[in-house]
Amino acid sequence: MSRPRTPEPALDVQGDSPKGMRDEDNDDGTQHSHRMLNFSDALLSIIATVMILPVTHTEISPEQQFDKNIQKLLATRIAVYLMTFLIVTVAWAAHTRLFQVVAKTDDTLALLNLACMMTITFLPFTFSLMVTFPEVALGILLFCVCVITIGAVQVLIVLYAFHFPHLLNPQIARSAHRALYRRHVLYIVLRGPALCFAAAGFSLFFYPASYLLMATVIFLPYIHKAASWCRRRLMGPREPPAHSVEVFSFDLQEPLSKERVEAFSDGVYAIVATLLILDICENNVPDAKDVAERFHGSLVAALSASGPRFLAYFGSFATVGLLWFAHHSLFLHVRKATQSMGLLNTLSLAFVGGLPLAYQQTSALARRPRDELESVRVSCAIIFFASVFQLAMWTAALLHGPDTLQPSARFGGGEHAFMLAKLALYPCASLLAFACTCFLSRFSVAIFHLTQVAVPFAFLLLRLLVRLALRLLRALPSLAGPAPDAQDAAARAPLLPAPC
Amino acid sequence: MSRPRTPEPALDVQGDSPKGMRDEDNDDGTQHSHRMLNFSDALLSIIATVMILPVTHTEISPEQQFDKNIQKLLATRIAVYLMTFLIVTVAWAAHTRLFQVVAKTDDTLALLNLACMMTITFLPFTFSLMVTFPEVALGILLFCVCVITIGAVQVLIVLYAFHFPHLLNPQIARSAHRALYRRHVLYIVLRGPALCFAAAGFSLFFYPASYLLMATVIFLPYIHKAASWCRRRLMGPREPPAHSVEVFSFDLQEPLSKERVEAFSDGVYAIVATLLILDICENNVPDAKDVAERFHGSLVAALSASGPRFLAYFGSFATVGLLWFAHHSLFLHVRKATQSMGLLNTLSLAFVGGLPLAYQQTSALARRPRDELESVRVSCAIIFFASVFQLAMWTAALLHGPDTLQPSARFGGGEHAFMLAKLALYPCASLLAFACTCFLSRFSVAIFHLTQVAVPFAFLLLRLLVRLALRLLRALPSLAGPAPDAQDAAARAPLLPAPC
Repeated sequence: MSRPRTPEPALDVQGDSPKGMRDEDNDDGTQHSHRMLNFSDALLSIIATVMILPVTHTEISPEQQFDKNIQKLLATRIAVYLMTFLIVTVAWAAHTRLFQVVAKTDDTLALLNLACMMTITFLPFTFSLMVTFPEVALGILLFCVCVITIGAVQVLIVLYAFHFPHLLNPQIARSAHRALYRRHVLYIVLRGPALCFAAAGFSLFFYPASYLLMATVIFLPYIHKAASWCRRRLMGPREPPAHSVEVFSFDLQEPLSKERVEAFSDGVYAIVATLLILDICENNVPDAKDVAERFHGSLVAALSASGPRFLAYFGSFATVGLLWFAHHSLFLHVRKATQSMGLLNTLSLAFVGGLPLAYQQTSALARRPRDELESVRVSCAIIFFASVFQLAMWTAALLHGPDTLQPSARFGGGEHAFMLAKLALYPCASLLAFACTCFLSRFSVAIFHLTQVAVPFAFLLLRLLVRLALRLLRALPSLAGPAPDAQDAAARAPLLPAPC
Repeated sequence: MSRPRTPEPALDVQGDSPKGMRDEDNDDGTQHSHRMLNFSDALLSIIATVMILPVTHTEISPEQQFDKNIQKLLATRIAVYLMTFLIVTVAWAAHTRLFQVVAKTDDTLALLNLACMMTITFLPFTFSLMVTFPEVALGILLFCVCVITIGAVQVLIVLYAFHFPHLLNPQIARSAHRALYRRHVLYIVLRGPALCFAAAGFSLFFYPASYLLMATVIFLPYIHKAASWCRRRLMGPREPPAHSVEVFSFDLQEPLSKERVEAFSDGVYAIVATLLILDICENNVPDAKDVAERFHGSLVAALSASGPRFLAYFGSFATVGLLWFAHHSLFLHVRKATQSMGLLNTLSLAFVGGLPLAYQQTSALARRPRDELESVRVSCAIIFFASVFQLAMWTAALLHGPDTLQPSARFGGGEHAFMLAKLALYPCASLLAFACTCFLSRFSVAIFHLTQVAVPFAFLLLRLLVRLALRLLRALPSLAGPAPDAQDAAARAPLLPAPC
């Protein structure tokens, strides 16, 4: 629980820490905000991901043709999922930034935060309305009301925190320019709601303009960044005015809190892993009457009829688990999450959230040979994109220089090659499976399941292979002179524990 | 992310901490296990709670009578939910204890932990089978196979960690009795699987014995505790042998890690809060054709037809959010979570997990006046039990003495009265609502919604009321001599910030 939230390490000590520290904490009525932030992260990651359930619940019976109606329903639900994911991650990033300014909480702030969360969880419903009735203004209006409410609650949080400065980040609390900070934070918090107010106005007579404005709200941080990049390019790096440096350390260019990126990602992976078994429990427990009639009372026969589902379940869980493992390994080497890494992480997570769809596709549609090939390919594509964005995140971290990565994972570092192998495994495996389905289209489902089962073993073998390569490289130099990787190997050597 | 897991505070520094510390960490190939534990907590809390979804998804159309079949299906699903919740919390507690021994992880341990999680998420399915076919041995067999697999993976984890002692809790790693520790931990890990092995044997010829053995697995910690309590009573407190003191510090009597109790509870609250909106998005977006035909194209009319649902949504979210708030306030004052507090917390969370059912009942069944009263009463009961177990947890903490609570929340402490008021609000409100439905049974739904909406305001007023009472008490003593609460008030006075 004790996330480092304030710059003073002394304040981070919690739990079994010296009692005086903790009690002092309680005595001025404030609390560290770790747990509130943990709860918010869990809530936001679940709400971002759970909208995939209506997509997977779309009923397509084996006899029924894949007709227009169902296509439209499916497209609608996928759109709702993607929009929800996008807006919730934007809201989460704003929440992260806000609570980098407000370092501590008390009861009032906790209640205000709950009100904020309640409004955010209502957003998916407004999307459902918008997508189902794109030409009716009500959906847009409701969305705008929600965003304005969130803005109002956040303004209250900011005003309250600046009224009791001991709640603020100590750097700001001690600053002489506190009023300036407040104005700046309020400006950032109010930008979105102001645009939404305009969108609500437009929705009454010209709704396409509202959609445009709403898109602006979502992409505002990136537009802002692109604009400032262009300005720097055109006018050269300006020397900012003296106080502005301080102010802009809480602006959108600031790296996101690494801990909260991890917490949010954990939530997404956890809920995706769990949705799989929910489906199985709800739909794959055979009916007692059915067992007696069709399978002559043999439960084993009834279960083996839906055997592929269980295989798919274990395969999917392994996929989600190992993608989490790759993410976990990556973030062990990451020091700061820059904005571009945050964007790539969001994209990766959006595809991870689509994995239950991959599972659904390969298990439910597998019986219809016409769609079999397509569904396997969709699944491969989902896994490919989820993993390739992780690889891209690592590449972005490498490009950003020494601030973002631990030395051991940088070029020439001890863990560099191993990290690359870990992150490249899933993109390669899913590409390979995709390619195989082109040549061996009859066995596509078998190929897909085989891939899902084989990759975990590949992860284990990876470690052995790297070790073998090291042994070879350590033996070689005396024969063939210093090999290009020898330095690397030497650096990696002390990392390896003795083989069991 | 940086939960204090090892006793050395120096090792807990993470993220922006001095670089040397962090790199050293990576250099021996180990990692702090915070994030892995966070992920496990999220996964386990979601899997424990998500099985309420099949219960709420049980279709009861307004015309249909509440017949035998549906009653049986509903009872089955509720049983699966409760059994899943129980076994997952037991597995979570075992996981917590195991990772109090194993303080650090590396890649192998992370992969083994994933395998363990995969097996645990499969448990709900075995329950579904058991409850649907209670007389077929297959369900029991599958359950036992799962438990034995989990045991085997945990044995691997223990053996691996004891083979590389730098992964262990430093206290054990430095101990001279390491082999003794290993034997003891293996004994604890293998107890459950051994019983399950026997249960699997019995299931082939006399299945009631298997159920008895399975129940033993679940209640083992409590049986063990009761037995040792009886022994102490009968034989007096024995002086334990010299090395045994050390060994038993990792036994089941040890308090649970407070951080992990919080993380698990947060996961449960977050998923419950999210399940509500999922239902709304899936079932309450009106159909385009329906709107055109029944409501003459008016979306507002169509939405207001399901207006009570939205009211119920906001009411339920407020209930979940405020129960989380009470839990959060409580754990701010808690130092250690003893075993009895852990049990009470589990019971409270099991009822919190039932809240989506309360929501479902009051919104879907509300149109059938015959069941209306019953469903409101069920909802009141769920809320009452969820909140009264929180109150009981606090009482248990008070009884356990100075180890479990911060001084400010103990008898006579500054926050004592306020804490009591916070925790007693929901039990009182739900009891009051229940009593009202007895006298005014016609307005039961209105009363219930009113309560849900009124309590948040009561939480806000509570603070004002306590402040008013303090003002009065501060003014009184000079007139009436020292009132019994005056000392209390004086202690509380410096806590209060100046009123805005």
